[in-house]
Parts: sequence; structure tokens; C-alpha cells
Amino acid sequence: MTSPATVDAVLAKVDAGLDQSLERLFHLLRIKSISTDPAYAAECQKAADWIAAELNDLGFDASARPTPGHPVVVAHGPDQAGPHVLFYAHYDVQPVDPLNLWHTDPFDPQIVERDGRKIIVARGASDDKGQMLTFIEACRAWKAATGSLPIRVSLMLEGEEESGGKNLPPFMKDNAGELKADIALVCDTDMWDRQTPSITTMLRGLVADEIEVTAADKDLHSGMFGNAARNPNQVVADIIASLRAPDGSVTLPGFYDDVAEISPELKAQWAGLGFDDKAFLGGVGLSSPAGEQGRSVLEMLWARPTCEINGMIGGYTGDGFKTVIPSKASAKISFRLVSGQDPHKIRAAFRAHVEKLLPPDCTVKFTPHGASPAITVPADGEFLARALEGLTAEWNKQAVITGAGGSIPVVGEFKKILGLDTLLIGFAHIDDQIHSPNEKYDLESYHRGIRSWVRVLGALAK
Amino acid sequence: MTSPATVDAVLAKVDAGLDQSLERLFHLLRIKSISTDPAYAAECQKAADWIAAELNDLGFDASARPTPGHPVVVAHGPDQAGPHVLFYAHYDVQPVDPLNLWHTDPFDPQIVERDGRKIIVARGASDDKGQMLTFIEACRAWKAATGSLPIRVSLMLEGEEESGGKNLPPFMKDNAGELKADIALVCDTDMWDRQTPSITTMLRGLVADEIEVTAADKDLHSGMFGNAARNPNQVVADIIASLRAPDGSVTLPGFYDDVAEISPELKAQWAGLGFDDKAFLGGVGLSSPAGEQGRSVLEMLWARPTCEINGMIGGYTGDGFKTVIPSKASAKISFRLVSGQDPHKIRAAFRAHVEKLLPPDCTVKFTPHGASPAITVPADGEFLARALEGLTAEWNKQAVITGAGGSIPVVGEFKKILGLDTLLIGFAHIDDQIHSPNEKYDLESYHRGIRSWVRVLGALAK
Repeated sequence: MTSPATVDAVLAKVDAGLDQSLERLFHLLRIKSISTDPAYAAECQKAADWIAAELNDLGFDASARPTPGHPVVVAHGPDQAGPHVLFYAHYDVQPVDPLNLWHTDPFDPQIVERDGRKIIVARGASDDKGQMLTFIEACRAWKAATGSLPIRVSLMLEGEEESGGKNLPPFMKDNAGELKADIALVCDTDMWDRQTPSITTMLRGLVADEIEVTAADKDLHSGMFGNAARNPNQVVADIIASLRAPDGSVTLPGFYDDVAEISPELKAQWAGLGFDDKAFLGGVGLSSPAGEQGRSVLEMLWARPTCEINGMIGGYTGDGFKTVIPSKASAKISFRLVSGQDPHKIRAAFRAHVEKLLPPDCTVKFTPHGASPAITVPADGEFLARALEGLTAEWNKQAVITGAGGSIPVVGEFKKILGLDTLLIGFAHIDDQIHSPNEKYDLESYHRGIRSWVRVLGALAK
Repeated sequence: MTSPATVDAVLAKVDAGLDQSLERLFHLLRIKSISTDPAYAAECQKAADWIAAELNDLGFDASARPTPGHPVVVAHGPDQAGPHVLFYAHYDVQPVDPLNLWHTDPFDPQIVERDGRKIIVARGASDDKGQMLTFIEACRAWKAATGSLPIRVSLMLEGEEESGGKNLPPFMKDNAGELKADIALVCDTDMWDRQTPSITTMLRGLVADEIEVTAADKDLHSGMFGNAARNPNQVVADIIASLRAPDGSVTLPGFYDDVAEISPELKAQWAGLGFDDKAFLGGVGLSSPAGEQGRSVLEMLWARPTCEINGMIGGYTGDGFKTVIPSKASAKISFRLVSGQDPHKIRAAFRAHVEKLLPPDCTVKFTPHGASPAITVPADGEFLARALEGLTAEWNKQAVITGAGGSIPVVGEFKKILGLDTLLIGFAHIDDQIHSPNEKYDLESYHRGIRSWVRVLGALAK
């Protein structure tokens, strides 16, 4: 058990060392570790090597392990009493285009003031280098103040989260014995609001598919063929239109079969969060929830599956007009899944539905783009309770338990491969513009994020 | 009256001068006169100037006249006995994308052999530079053989046919006195088949509109917003899907109100053409007519209106997958109209239909892309009879009277502004791949097209 005085001493180290800590963050932010573009492979290696070296300096046994893609950094702290945690984050970042919309060089981090708050602007400042360092810097402060960590800590830091992450699950399988722990910690999520820390216990899953419909074997002139020739734009639009009913529900046969209603307790807890539907939608210029009518926006986002058309294209799409009937049209379609839904079953149902709708003379090519189930972390565990306690102490406000509409596939892999539950704790904000120009991380997210992990590690050591 | 011996002498000039004639065609094909893309404006001017210079060399009083868009070439031959014809064609061409599907540079014309026939491959080889030159080269042969043309000829050659052509009607109005003639000739249509020349007397009209639907004021992440935020891809697809009934008919309210059934005589004449539905559709990899069930393919193409989705785009359409909910999605939609349908009424009905379907939080921007009614040319005129005679003599096979599914808006303008009927005579083939990669014009179309115009001009001089 860690005494309050010990924790205070560690927190004092955090505060005193903030400037040097920012220098380390800036060093990492300057490394252009864009994982999806092979031109930046050496930068990804450089980021992995730098992190491994830092962790070795902190007394971890750390190395950047090769994979068929970018390295995975694995580090183990010395054996300790108390629970053994496995911390996950990712050191790769999204591409930076469109570059012209950035106000500063995305790889030259700056601290600027906006709306009275100091923010760190750079690609990866929030997603996920800043979040990752909150944990590593908390370990550093523990080491500096007490000479050791309060519990046993291992880290697994990925370099392909932004580019499909397909090499991580085999890596985890190959090293399952070494990676065993009692609980996984992931720092890649948001706070509930600027004042309120949160732990995410529900994450929607995702299954994504691409369809390409071909009709004629070449593009046709609509004057010469229009009415007689099948138009694949029409076919793809008909398929898309068939996926949603006027009431906002998804029409795929069997889509809701394995979807359970949330418990009255959870419903009540979510109602207590005081989520403002109007402000949430109004923030992006909308006012009317598009999903299943009669459900709250939080339910739509956290507890109900959806079907989204992420892209579609066919025919002439440049300036002006071209009276073409294209040979092909395509769409990228994804389903966000909730607990109980099997991504492979949903993909099969989707493909069967498309095949059934396909009119004469058309063929369809399917391209899968990943499948991961939804995740639910037990909301009544001892680790969760201790972590909530640590967060509540730091922010002086009761930490809340939330869902999230997005997917973090590694959480499913922790459960499947290593049998681990995960605590999703993060300090990002909805306005961080991750994946977009001018990505930022609040200086407060960074500073108090480190302090939060100091307290969570202390609380877990109880 | 022109004697058969005179016509033979002119035809001999055509045959003897074919190589030089092809050189001129190739020169014109090398000019990248893509009218829809402002980057090629200078190339359009260059094409117009070159044609005007050629016509001046042939004794016409020719000039490239400025418009708010690309120039119109106008040329007048000396006064003559007999009817005064006004010839129309267009010197602009379609864009060339997707460039990777071309086997040769679209602007480096080649003569190659395919299926035992020599073909000229280039953008515009058929549509419409090759067709245009058949007429000009016929004039050249008349001039070379007899020192003059057999009738009075004027030309009006447009540079915006492939990009809406909105500047031509005002130009025609402003110069109506100068452009007056007895009959218009247009070379922008097909032969009935490789052996059978034809004159087209029915043309479908066209009304084209672009819709851009906006929902949120920025692109959203589908994890964070999916289900709650309106997805404009879905909205555009729903609109497109609503336009066609499962039986192939167009569902727009009032769409068929002004559409008459064709007469039993015309139906019988079309049946006599021996059109092979299977071969027509099979030629482009199709087998099943997509339009109103229970009607023949010729009816669908010539006598029934249609709605075609010529382009649609929204969200992420590159490689891989991006879980975005876009702010905007758009579609380019056109209606091919038949005799009796008012394009402005159809546009209004379409827009009202779209507005009615628009869900909450969405706005739509409409961009019009031209509107022209269907055309029917009287099938019993003296000029038509003479032209049929000239074509029949050249091809040694009775020329036929046909409809066409495409629109040639200028034919409506000839009637409306200048009071002129039009003879639509062309030598293109259905496999010319106009508007597509690897556009071609049969060498025979070019050579015997020139010979055909020599004979038609001779026949009109009677």
C-alpha cells in the first residue's frame, strides 16, 4: 500500500519536471512516424528505438521487436508485489495531409494559447504520443521519487495502429506467455469533459466491407444506352438505400438479433451524465439525431449498432457534366457493432443481402476491411474501482464510467489472446482534432494525465 | 443539277487525296480541345483558329468568333443557286480520364488494325472531329475538282458541345440573320450498321442536374458520431434509389404525363430494321434490358425517357478504408426526354422531389447542366429524300430513317431560333467508344463519310 505522502512526493516530481518532460514529448513528436506510408518506415523505427532507450533508462528491460511491419516496443519492469499491469499505446501517427490547412509544421510541436488554454499542437500530440507519454512520465516520477514503481508494469507499444494493426495480433500470440499480466491499461480515449475523468467500459466493434458492382464491360454513353443498360450507380444506390429504414433502423436481416437492451441501471447512470444532445449535435451543425427514433443520442452512440456509408463513387465526378453510364460503381460500408454481435455473422448477412439485391447482368466484388467485435469491460471489478478512485482524487470530481462509439481493436485482442480485461483511461478531448490538421493536446491533459497515472498506479498498489 | 460524271470526278479527288486528308485530321486530333476543363481553353482556341484558317483556304469567309466561352467558327461560301445549307459539328472533345485505360496517348492519333478493319484511335476521332472533317473534306474535293461547291454552304462549328453548350443559343440569336439558311446539316450521329447509312429523325432531349447534399458542417468520425449524425451518402443514395421503380420505370411524379406511344406505322418500321437486342446488349457485356419491362430495346432507347445517374461521390474513395461520415455528398443526374416532355417541367419536378425527400439537417444545392427538348424532324421532306438518295448511292444499300437515344440540343435551337429543320447524317458506329478510353473512328467511316457528303451535296443541288 502506498501512503498519501508517497503519492504527494511523486506528484511533486511530476510538477517539478514538467519542462524536461515536455522536451521529451517534443523530441518524440518531431519523429515523423506515419505508419501507413512506407516512405516513413525509418522514422517509425526511430520512434520505437527512442522509446525503448527511454524505458531502459527508467530501469525497464525494453526493446523494439521486429514484426513484418513496424516494430512493437515491449518493456518489462522488475517483479513487484501487487497486480501486474500491461500498458498499451501506439507511437505511430496519421498522415498530415491536407498540409495547407495546418497553421504550423505538424512535426514542429508548439505550445500556443487558444481560448485561454495552453495547447500542444503537432501531429500525434493527442493521438497517441502525448497520451502514451503521460504513462511513461508517471513511471519516471515514481522512479525518481521512490526508486521503483509501486506495482509491476509491462508495456507493449504499437507502431501500426493507424494503418490496420494487422501484425499485432500474431505478435501477441507468438509472445502470449511473456505478455501475460493481470489487467491491461490503454491510454487512447477521451475524458468525459474538461473537468471529469472517465473510464470507458463499452466500445463498439466494427466490420467494414467494400463493394464494387460491375454491369457493362465498359463505360457507356447514356444517350446511346440509357434505359436499356443497367447503371451500376443506380444499383449501388439501391443497395445503400435498402440498408436503412425510414425510422433510422438498419434493415439487414438479423442485424439486431444479438443486440441486448442496456440495463435500467446503466440507462440511469448515462442519464445522470447530463449529456447535452443539442450541444453535441449543434457542435457540428446538426440538430436532429439520425438513428433509431425514440432512443437517446448516447444510446445511439454507445449501445446501438449502426451502418455507415463511409465512401461511394461511380461515373464522372469532376467539374461539369459527362453523360456516362459507368461500367463500375463502388461503396465503402461499415457497421459499428455492440456487445453480442458477431462481426463475421454481420459481414455474411451483409454480403448475402447485397447478392440478393443484385439485378441481372451485375457482378459484385467484396473487399473486407477488418472486423472486430464490441468490447464490454466488467463494470464491477476491483481494478476498475481503484482506478476510478485515483482519477477522482486527481481531478477532484467523481470519475465516470462511459461507453464509446468507436473501436479499439486491441482491447478485443487482449481478451481473446491474453484473457485480459482492459481499463481504458485517457485524457484527450473531443476538440483535439485527431486525424485532422492542427491536432492538439491540452497542456492540462498532459500534465494532469501524468499526475492521474501516478495516482492510478498508487491506487492499484493498494 | 450535277451530272454523275461531275460527282465521279469529285469522288476521285477524295480517293486520291485521302492521305493528305488524314494528315489534316491528325493535326486537329492532336489539339487537346477539352472544353469542360478551363486548363484547355487555349487548346480550344487553337482548334477553332486552325479550322477557320483551313476554311478560308477553301474559299470560305471564315472566322473564329469569340463568345463568353470557347469560340464558334462561322464560315460562309459564295452565293450559289440551289438550297443554302448550314452545316454544324463541334470541335471540342470529352476529357480523357481514366487515362490508364487508354492503350495509346489519346492525343497522339494512330491508325491501327482491329478485327480486320483499319481504325483511327484518338479522343475526338469519332466525336466529333472525324465526323466534322468528313464534311469539310467533301467541300475541299468539290472545290478541287470543279472550282466551286454545288450549292451554297455555311458552317457553324461549336466548341462547347461537350460542356453544356450554353453560349451557342445566345450566339445564334445574336447572329440569326447571318445564319439563316434553308436546311441545317449535322454530322454527329451513327450509321445504322456497317453497311447501312441512316438519317436520324428522332432525338431524345436531355435535362441534367447536379445535387450536392450537406449535413454536418465538417467531416465526422463514424465511431464518434455514427448513428446520431445524418450521413449525406445515405441521403444521396436514398434519393437516387427513389427515382426508379423495380419494373424499370422512372418514378418522378408526372414524368410520363406528356409521353405519347409511338404510332403503329413507326413501330412496324422499327421492327423492320431487324435490330438485334441480344447483340446490342451483348456487345457491352449485358443481356437484360434495364428499362421498362415489356418494351423493346429500340423503344427504350428512342421513344422512352430515362433517368441516369452519371456520377456520384461522397466520403473516402481512395485505397483502404477511412471511417468518415462526410459533410457532403453529390450526384450528377440526367433525364433523357422524348417528344412532348418539357425539360423545364421535368427539372422542376425533379427538384421538388429531392426537396421533399430531404431529411432534417440537410441542405441541397442544385447546379443545372443544360436542358433541351426531344426533336422530331419531319420524315417526308424533299431535302430528306435527296439526302437519302445520295447516301444510298454511296453505300449501295437503301439508307434508313432512325431514331437516336442521345441528345443534340443544337437541333432544337436550329428550329427555335432559325426556323430550320435538320438532317442528321453521320458515319460513326456504336463501337466507337465515344466519351470512353480508346475512342476510334473507322477509316471507312472517314473515307466513305467524305464520299457520302460529296454525293449528298450533289444530290441537294438537283
